[in-house]
Amino acid sequence: MELMKQKIVSEGRVLPGNVLKVGNFLNQQLDIAFLTEVGQEIARLYRDAGVTKVITIEASGIAIAALAAQALGVPAVIVKKHSSANQSKEVYTAEISSFTHGNTYTAAVAKEYIQPTDRFLIVDDFLAVGNAIVGLRKILAQGGAELAGCAIAIEKAFQGGGDALRAEGIRVESLAMIDSMADGHIVFRS
Amino acid sequence: MELMKQKIVSEGRVLPGNVLKVGNFLNQQLDIAFLTEVGQEIARLYRDAGVTKVITIEASGIAIAALAAQALGVPAVIVKKHSSANQSKEVYTAEISSFTHGNTYTAAVAKEYIQPTDRFLIVDDFLAVGNAIVGLRKILAQGGAELAGCAIAIEKAFQGGGDALRAEGIRVESLAMIDSMADGHIVFRS
Repeated sequence: MELMKQKIVSEGRVLPGNVLKVGNFLNQQLDIAFLTEVGQEIARLYRDAGVTKVITIEASGIAIAALAAQALGVPAVIVKKHSSANQSKEVYTAEISSFTHGNTYTAAVAKEYIQPTDRFLIVDDFLAVGNAIVGLRKILAQGGAELAGCAIAIEKAFQGGGDALRAEGIRVESLAMIDSMADGHIVFRS
Repeated sequence: MELMKQKIVSEGRVLPGNVLKVGNFLNQQLDIAFLTEVGQEIARLYRDAGVTKVITIEASGIAIAALAAQALGVPAVIVKKHSSANQSKEVYTAEISSFTHGNTYTAAVAKEYIQPTDRFLIVDDFLAVGNAIVGLRKILAQGGAELAGCAIAIEKAFQGGGDALRAEGIRVESLAMIDSMADGHIVFRS
């Protein structure tokens, strides 16, 4: 998606440790007009893939997941990172190591939202080593649901997670793929 | 909003401890077609209020905030509950006690997203005692920004937070106001 690359170049900042800061439009302050177009692009890519629900892990992918679900005309399921007073005990869970935050957490979602008749599209803002997607696949498998594929705003392709999933036969569509951020210079995969 | 009340009655469940479970459409599985209408209703209420940005605290209000921002044609700012490797040190913060989760956390947002020229609409899924809104007001005050008002999907009016804010002259628009949930029977304020 050309517009995603343009936004990254014009508004993103590369920080030490291969951190790409896109808080200005993607995950702290949300450029909703832009993210609406992102949702429409995701829907275009997966229009014929039989998606019945979008799924993401809270929190930074929620807006993109909601807008993709809006464009696809399906519900979105939000997997929680923390237990909650009003969350059912009847949950599917997966342990996920966060590359960004350097911790491990238990992702959980009520069983009732993951059905064998469902075909899910995983949506997230970033894909790096791919741990979140691995965890979501475990959760979908527990419910016997199908995976249509993944839609990612920005893939840090140099971290290998996306290509490892593709090598397994998983469909991964990233709206921008970054092959390198060395010396603060962003190189996109064409 | 009549449709909100209908959804609560038909799909909500009252659990012990005055917990209203609306995970089926509002915050675990998101009925995006419905939430798009919610966003449009919020925009109708605040169309002439000079809103320049929507703001919410992660995570369960993000989708509603995004869809309200979409309908208003403005960006949305997401206040974080946790520090993050790619979050600026230059942040405004507020300590917030969560009634739902029974803990206290530090809400934080990069200073650059809160400007004196901004007029914010606070959006959230629930309003009970109002601690989140009190915290967000502190954050807006630190940045010298104005508050246009609050838009809430479901107000637990019997917990008093909304009325306390209104008594201070804050505009609070709740799409459904619950006066009682005694014995699992939901009574709306008319």
